[in-house]
Parts: sequence; structure tokens; C-alpha cells
Amino acid sequence: MTETNQVESSTDRSDFCYPGIQILDCTIRDGGLMNNHLFDDQTVKGVYTACVESGIDYMEIGYKNSQRIFTPSDYGPWKFCREDDIRRIVGENDTRLKLSAMADAGKSDYRMDILPKEHSVLDMIRVATYIHQIPLALDMIRYAHDKGYETSLNLMAISVVPEQDLNKALELLANSEATALYIVDSFGALQTNQIRYLLKKFLNYAESAGKKVGIHVHNNRQMALAHTLEGIICKASMVDASMAGCGRGAGNCQIELLISFLKNSKYQIKPILKCIQEYIEPLRDKLEWGFNIPYMITGHYNVHPRAAMQFNNSKDKRDIVKFFDLLREEMED
Amino acid sequence: MTETNQVESSTDRSDFCYPGIQILDCTIRDGGLMNNHLFDDQTVKGVYTACVESGIDYMEIGYKNSQRIFTPSDYGPWKFCREDDIRRIVGENDTRLKLSAMADAGKSDYRMDILPKEHSVLDMIRVATYIHQIPLALDMIRYAHDKGYETSLNLMAISVVPEQDLNKALELLANSEATALYIVDSFGALQTNQIRYLLKKFLNYAESAGKKVGIHVHNNRQMALAHTLEGIICKASMVDASMAGCGRGAGNCQIELLISFLKNSKYQIKPILKCIQEYIEPLRDKLEWGFNIPYMITGHYNVHPRAAMQFNNSKDKRDIVKFFDLLREEMED
Repeated sequence: MTETNQVESSTDRSDFCYPGIQILDCTIRDGGLMNNHLFDDQTVKGVYTACVESGIDYMEIGYKNSQRIFTPSDYGPWKFCREDDIRRIVGENDTRLKLSAMADAGKSDYRMDILPKEHSVLDMIRVATYIHQIPLALDMIRYAHDKGYETSLNLMAISVVPEQDLNKALELLANSEATALYIVDSFGALQTNQIRYLLKKFLNYAESAGKKVGIHVHNNRQMALAHTLEGIICKASMVDASMAGCGRGAGNCQIELLISFLKNSKYQIKPILKCIQEYIEPLRDKLEWGFNIPYMITGHYNVHPRAAMQFNNSKDKRDIVKFFDLLREEMED
Repeated sequence: MTETNQVESSTDRSDFCYPGIQILDCTIRDGGLMNNHLFDDQTVKGVYTACVESGIDYMEIGYKNSQRIFTPSDYGPWKFCREDDIRRIVGENDTRLKLSAMADAGKSDYRMDILPKEHSVLDMIRVATYIHQIPLALDMIRYAHDKGYETSLNLMAISVVPEQDLNKALELLANSEATALYIVDSFGALQTNQIRYLLKKFLNYAESAGKKVGIHVHNNRQMALAHTLEGIICKASMVDASMAGCGRGAGNCQIELLISFLKNSKYQIKPILKCIQEYIEPLRDKLEWGFNIPYMITGHYNVHPRAAMQFNNSKDKRDIVKFFDLLREEMED
């Protein structure tokens, strides 16, 4: 940006450089929740290439989930991330981009499916867990760590986690092998003061244990970008984002907007815009995502977007007043 | 919201009540910039009714602009807000909702068209001005004030106003008759630290002069809501928003989201959702607004959305890479 003006230069711009920040692209992993991970190879390759060219730090290529629980013929390869499938896209991944896969607590045959690091091009295993699955998640983290991977624990639905349970979990997590602890606003329900509060709390446990804190936000209330930026200001060092916000329901923080705000020359916007144009926008024919009023309403009531997703697929989908009444009755009953 | 959780209750929620806040709906006025204000009466009446029923404080029903400059046959009535037209919608407006109209500096025959308050159902005249038009805007403010109206001065394109010019303007404005001084992020280009900086600066001049500070933000970088909320936290006491964000280009702060975040029982969401469903969403056939990547790019480069609006109407509109290259060349030349 060569355009300068006094308003801008009169404030401290250096605070948006954040040289240590790491961005993880979750387009294929989170977006795949809307199409059973049935992406063609060109699309996955397009996202991979854009991540490499734009200087993104990590790309999450999909899930390491169970082929017993999820019938393989119903899903694309990125539900399982078999080594051969990944290598078909990335070869030996001889780039600076790191690759991650997510394993869901309770939905992954991790002892069977996670290879020793030396046999995999994956760099990181992220374990997604609800608060009640923490003991299992800790076992998964330990397993992946021992196999040689960076690991993160991604605590989902954090907007409904009771404070005491969170404190107890964070004590366990501080003593775990996890490289990073992630705040996941699955419902897109948090307010900015809660983002600040949670960052402070997580850092309190994580920093002394030498762990990073990350943040992953959904866009139900149009705050995914704002809260990701706020997370960075509050010292999150890993943040998730996706191309055009592609992700479950209202989607994620848009990676192109995030890079636009970060005055960090390691990131380039153009390869991402190219990928959005060639591969992501065309997905909209079959894969719906992004903000709409039903998602706002589930975010408002701090509940899973499931009801909104169903409603958006029903014949009533334009009747937002009906959906509001439905949810209000349920919540205020 | 009956759903409670410890994360929420462990932070101070009272700061989102803001009993003194006033919301101005600018759906018809700002949205009309995308359709030459050619709304049918039912739509304007629908917005009016929703504002009344949802407890919105002000509705801006259109512009008081010149019938010499803008040929009346090319525009709908809300470009001019003749008294008869307004009364056809609101009668005597025997409600708590106040009505405003905007007059553009340099585009309004204000001495001819602004009636004495006792002959009008309008409560407020808002003067929109660029920095170089301040002397004219001050004359307009004085005129409207002397006719009996509340007034505001809305300083457009503030993201490119040089600091010294702004200081000089604020000195003049502090001594003016304006009821409120508005920060207008016309390009949707500001960062959060700039919002805080500008609010502090405006309040510095306004508070001692007994004036309110307001904020009006466009959504080019998906921060209209976040920055409106930040404005409120930083003590803005009037904020603009519109139904479904309907407004020029990337649109405005969405009023339904704003109300969802404000824990202020004077506002009701449901009448707004009803209006969006019945009157606003159907407008999309002829009136395009809302975030897209070309608007992000003009916001990124801190320029007027004009180029993006033209591009969105061209045959190339899907070629966002082309638009990025075009603007980048222009800006980094």
C-alpha cells in the first residue's frame, strides 16, 4: 500500500506485523464438512499450491478419521488422509508449507491410521475434542507426539464449556505433549471480551509450559475476522483461516482478509485470490457455506449450527422468522 | 437468551447494554445509492414499521438533494424527501421513532428544500461532507439548526483525511450548531486501532461542546459490525446500521447483528427479521449490495468503492485477480 494518510500514520501500525504469527489454512478440512470431503484432486492441489505461493504456514488437508465409522465409499479421500492420497497431491512436499491433518476424538482409529512421522509427509496432527473427551484426546496427543508429529488440541464448542471444567482441562493440557492449544468457537457465538478473556486464560497455562495458543472462529455473527485479529492482538500465535471463508455452516475467517490486515510481508494475497477464482468459487454450485441469518440465530443463542444447516436445506429456508421463532421457543422454554 | 455458560458469566456483560446508545437505520437512504432510490412505498413503509416495532431510534428515509442536479424523473422520491412523499408513508409519525434526511454538501438546495421544522415530520437533518466542503457544510448545519432541526455533520472518507485538516475541522465543528459529529468510514478501510483513535479524538472536541459522536462504517473488509461495536465501546452514542446491511457497495453494519450483540432490551430483533424477509431480500433481484472481493480490494487500498462497483457490473466481474492487478498497478505506480 503506497496510499498513506495521516490518520493511519498517526497510529501504531507495527502491531499488525506480528512476525511470529502462523496461519493455518483449513479450507479442505473444514469446507469438506459441507461436501463429505468430495473434492477433486485439482481443487486440493490448487489450495496446496496457493498456500505454498502465498507463504501460508500450515495447510490442513483433511481428517484422519475412522474408515469403520465413516464408510469410505460415502466420503472423499480427505476424510481419511491416507498417505498415498496426500502424496498424490503434494509429492514429498519439498516446500516451506507444513501439512496437518485433524483427528476427531472418538471418531479416529488413530493407533491404526497415524503412521510414524518418518513414513508420512504430514507434519502435525491436530486433535479435535469436546470438553468431556479430554482424557481420550490426551491419549491421542501423546500417541501422535510419540510418533514424531507436532500436535495441537483443539477444544471445540468452547462457548458452552463451564469455567471449572475448562480450568481442570487446561491444567491437564499444560502438562500434555501438545505443541499448541486451540480455542475453537464452533458456534461463532463469542463476544470480543470473551475472546480476550479466553486468550488470557489459555496463555496463562500455555506460556509457562512452552506451548502456543491458537484460535479458530466460525462466522455465524460476522465476527470471524474481527475475533481472529483480536486473538492475534491478544497473543495467539497460530490462527486458522480458509479461502473465501470456506468451512462448515457460516464458514471460517477469510484468509484473504486476514492477510490484507496483517502488514506482514511474508504473506501474498494474489495466489489466494487466484485459487478462490479458479477453484473455490466454482465449488458453490455444490457446496454451500457462508453467513446467513439462520446461522446468526444459532450464534445468537449459542448453539450448534446443526439446526440452521437443516433449515437452510429445507423448503422453508427463506422463512427466517419461522426459524427465529422455532429456536427462541426452544431456548426460552 | 436463557442459555448461560460460565465463560460468558465470568466476563462483564453489562458493557454491552449501553442504555444511552441510539441506532439510526439508514437502509433506504444508503441502499438507495444502489437503485437511484427507486423503492416502492410498501418497502419504505415496511422499513418504517420495522423500525418503530423494533425500537430503533432514528430512521433516515432518504436525501434532501437538489432536483436541479438530479433529474427527478431518473430518481425515486427518496432522493429528495419532499414532505408529501414522507407523509404518505409515516402520516404524522406519531411514534417514538425519529426521522432524518441527509443533505449532501454541494448537492442540496437546502435553503429552498428544507422546510421549517414546524411544517415537517423530519426531526433531524444530517449533512454529508468531504473535508474540503466543511465551510459549506457548516452553513447547511446552521441553516437546518435555525429551522428547528437536530443536526449532524457526517465527515465522509475519513480514512484519507490528513490529520492537520481533521484537527482544524474539529475545532470548527466543536463551535458549530451540530448535535452530532459523525465518523464515516466510506471506504470500509479503517483498522480497529484507527477506530479507537478517531473516537478518542472526536470525543475530545465533542464532549466539552455537548455534542454526540456517531459512527457509520462500510463493510468492505467485513469489519462494519466489529467496528460499530468498537465504536460503541469507545463511547460513540449514535451508530448507523441497516437491514441486512443494505447500502452502497459492500453495505453497512447489519442492524440485526448489532441488536443481537447489544444486550439492550429496548431493541427487538423479530420485526427486523420480518422486514428483511418480506421487503429487503426480495430487493436483491434489482439492487446488489454486500461484501465481495473487489470491495475488499478497494478497502485494502483505501480508495472509493467506485472502481469495484464498475467492475462488479462488467462482464469480467468474476475475474478478481484482474481487478487486483488493475488496482495494485494504479496504487503502486
